[in-house]
Amino acid sequence: MNATRFPARVDIFEEGVREGFQSLPMVVPTEVKLDIIRRLSATGLKQIAAASFVRPDRVPGWADAEEVASRLEPVDGVSYSALWFNRRGLERAARHAGRLELLGSLTLSASRAFIQRNQNIGYEQALRQLDDVVAWCRELSIPVPRAAVSAAFGCNYEGPGSLSRLLEVVADLRGCARKHGLEIEYLTLADTMGWADPVQVGAYVDAVRAAWPGVRICLHLHDTRGLGLANAYAGLAAGVDLFDASLGGLGGCPFGGSVRASGNVSTEDLVYLCHRLGIATGVDLARLVAVSRHAEEVLGIPLPGRLKNVADACIGLPPAPSIAEVSAS
Amino acid sequence: MNATRFPARVDIFEEGVREGFQSLPMVVPTEVKLDIIRRLSATGLKQIAAASFVRPDRVPGWADAEEVASRLEPVDGVSYSALWFNRRGLERAARHAGRLELLGSLTLSASRAFIQRNQNIGYEQALRQLDDVVAWCRELSIPVPRAAVSAAFGCNYEGPGSLSRLLEVVADLRGCARKHGLEIEYLTLADTMGWADPVQVGAYVDAVRAAWPGVRICLHLHDTRGLGLANAYAGLAAGVDLFDASLGGLGGCPFGGSVRASGNVSTEDLVYLCHRLGIATGVDLARLVAVSRHAEEVLGIPLPGRLKNVADACIGLPPAPSIAEVSAS
Repeated sequence: MNATRFPARVDIFEEGVREGFQSLPMVVPTEVKLDIIRRLSATGLKQIAAASFVRPDRVPGWADAEEVASRLEPVDGVSYSALWFNRRGLERAARHAGRLELLGSLTLSASRAFIQRNQNIGYEQALRQLDDVVAWCRELSIPVPRAAVSAAFGCNYEGPGSLSRLLEVVADLRGCARKHGLEIEYLTLADTMGWADPVQVGAYVDAVRAAWPGVRICLHLHDTRGLGLANAYAGLAAGVDLFDASLGGLGGCPFGGSVRASGNVSTEDLVYLCHRLGIATGVDLARLVAVSRHAEEVLGIPLPGRLKNVADACIGLPPAPSIAEVSAS
Repeated sequence: MNATRFPARVDIFEEGVREGFQSLPMVVPTEVKLDIIRRLSATGLKQIAAASFVRPDRVPGWADAEEVASRLEPVDGVSYSALWFNRRGLERAARHAGRLELLGSLTLSASRAFIQRNQNIGYEQALRQLDDVVAWCRELSIPVPRAAVSAAFGCNYEGPGSLSRLLEVVADLRGCARKHGLEIEYLTLADTMGWADPVQVGAYVDAVRAAWPGVRICLHLHDTRGLGLANAYAGLAAGVDLFDASLGGLGGCPFGGSVRASGNVSTEDLVYLCHRLGIATGVDLARLVAVSRHAEEVLGIPLPGRLKNVADACIGLPPAPSIAEVSAS
């Protein structure tokens, strides 16, 4: 095990609105989505996933993606992203390119069984489809700065992850990027179904960094089996400075038939961990907790995050490490 | 930061019945308590806190401590403990010494404010009262193998913990033990209000070990702010091999006015972490998860543990590391 090498600063992609509202049992009104995005924009979070351009018949929770995107009032300094899975979705999203910052991603699953079940194709075909993604993005002048491996640490259909398998997928993504002359800035390792453990996180991060030097690693962690923040801690200790997270832990695990299972790590719990360790995030944690409580109240369902449940009188927020000091140091 | 030194095996004190049922908003029927203790006894857990001899007018949830203790059917190889705070409680518990394994504890809080608010006395007086605890235990032939520091990592009234303060309290406990000729086997560091962070856990464990060589450290961790399992991981990485935990995370935080706040780390989530890391616990995790789901169902309230919420079809329990192999190695 290596010595810890905590980053001085962490950036967070806020995924709660996009990921959360597609997995809830009810459709969240457009006004509520816009209100939560507006509140999130005032917390210091700089990157907010604001809409999901997926098939309305399959994901009714995002049938209003166009309306959210067109009514969104962007705040200076905050970037609003969107998700899509195919050309149709990308075209829909691209009509809102003024408000949304669209970024293409080379995304592959490390689990062959997951690809087969979800897309009904083999891994090789999924890899070849990335050529299409690059072509669509080029046509629409959308940059592709991101690569991502889903089910990077394990899969409900295949069990625990395998580092050699992950490294194969990373090599394929790197090869694809090279073939297309893409400059990949960051590589997301997604624990899509919450299989990671902290020792594995440290080991996989080290190995992926060695396999793709210079790429910035982003961790997308789920708290499905309770290890979300332990894994985030292991990532921080390995120097990871970029995380996906979700307001209040919004976004249950849609796999495995249990909507009660926890999804993404809670943004405010992750920010709390960072601040306790002296790592700057630029986030006003008290404000973020207030947004999380508000979301819980308007949605009328308990969200899995912990910090928001502590009464303000004794919540004990640590002082926020200064971004300015970090930049200067 | 030190290299990790995971233990080969961890022992767990199951606190769910005792701690959980005193903080629930309703009184749990005696039958339900006995049934859950019986089920827990078949999971491989070897130490179960089975009753709390506290004032029935203050803690109505344990007004039936006598009945639980007298109707308990001990299983061979499992030890059932009880809690008390004063001589009256100890005398009540001692009547059930055949079924309960009563162990005295030198317990002090690291927070002066906490002692003042909860006991309305100063720290020095709380320290002197330990002489009485030792005297009562001697009279009733109860051993005193345990010392404990509550609020060891921070306190809702005083804020973040201080290592120098903790070491003062540890020195006072060690002095008290020496004065009375007690052989303290283990020292519990309790994060009573959930203030610990993982770096702090590692540092405090190392420092306390240096201050009291040979004592076995037990961690009692609360998940109040989401860091419970990250802190457990840090404890494991520092070689801690003894933990308190609570079925399903039973036992909200009674401090700070929020019954929703999470309490003890969930036993099954902790066992899952251990098994994922190859650390033996002797616990049948599938059985323990079933008990946790059963408890949730009969109590009719959602418990904070995560693992139990994952559908069996994809829960992905790791193989249990063998205790026999550990013992042989």
